[in-house]
Amino acid sequence: MYRDDGFRELDRQECLRLMARAPVGRIVHTRHALPAVLPVNFCLDHGGAVLLRTAAASELVRAVDGVVVAFETDEVDTVTRSGWSVIVTGRADVVTDPAEHARLCRVGPRSWAPSPAEVFVRIEPELITGRELIAGHTLRGTRLPF
Amino acid sequence: MYRDDGFRELDRQECLRLMARAPVGRIVHTRHALPAVLPVNFCLDHGGAVLLRTAAASELVRAVDGVVVAFETDEVDTVTRSGWSVIVTGRADVVTDPAEHARLCRVGPRSWAPSPAEVFVRIEPELITGRELIAGHTLRGTRLPF
Repeated sequence: MYRDDGFRELDRQECLRLMARAPVGRIVHTRHALPAVLPVNFCLDHGGAVLLRTAAASELVRAVDGVVVAFETDEVDTVTRSGWSVIVTGRADVVTDPAEHARLCRVGPRSWAPSPAEVFVRIEPELITGRELIAGHTLRGTRLPF
Repeated sequence: MYRDDGFRELDRQECLRLMARAPVGRIVHTRHALPAVLPVNFCLDHGGAVLLRTAAASELVRAVDGVVVAFETDEVDTVTRSGWSVIVTGRADVVTDPAEHARLCRVGPRSWAPSPAEVFVRIEPELITGRELIAGHTLRGTRLPF
């Protein structure tokens, strides 16, 4: 959350409520020492953990397993120039517990294109921040990049 | 671009064509040693450079000036489960040349909420990658996170 950009900060409950209605977010990490970002579908688990489902052999899994990542969702109305964004920051881990994997097969995100060997990745919500821009709103005289 | 995720890769011209119609993207960088991401409106300049406009005193400027960042745009249809994403990776710099600043005041992005002291940030397109998912398409048996 940037303190000088004039947006209204959202509290944790508002963030989770908004995220729950977003079908797709973007996982932000580092790849080959460069910033990397990938859109993925997801769902929320207990306590605001983010769940992804992907191929066990995917490069994404190798890049994010055990690493602190950011996961961003947003919704923007370009006509009214308003919108919100929510970012979950925390460690990503492949779910290795068989019982937990079985549970997530029932309640976790569905693949948009299934593959034979899939894993779930859980992002722990160590930090949840969000902000909202109401149409044309400016606070404290700052200029908004949004 | 991940090689094992089953998406169709987009060439540079396709990427630029798609980006040109996206009103908002997300700048990905590092903040306090953590991955950070911020949605911003933008426009494209010559050669696929990404232009942002923000408050001169913003934390975003301090975080990205002179740093390699990624800039992501996407469009997703959740009904057909199709979409595209394009990522420009390159160095971000505040435009300091007065003539160039004056040019960008005419042709650059417009603020959604103006402030008295604004700067432009240009991201050089050192790498442009993109991918497309056509509804339910799977290649090479891999599972798509998207």
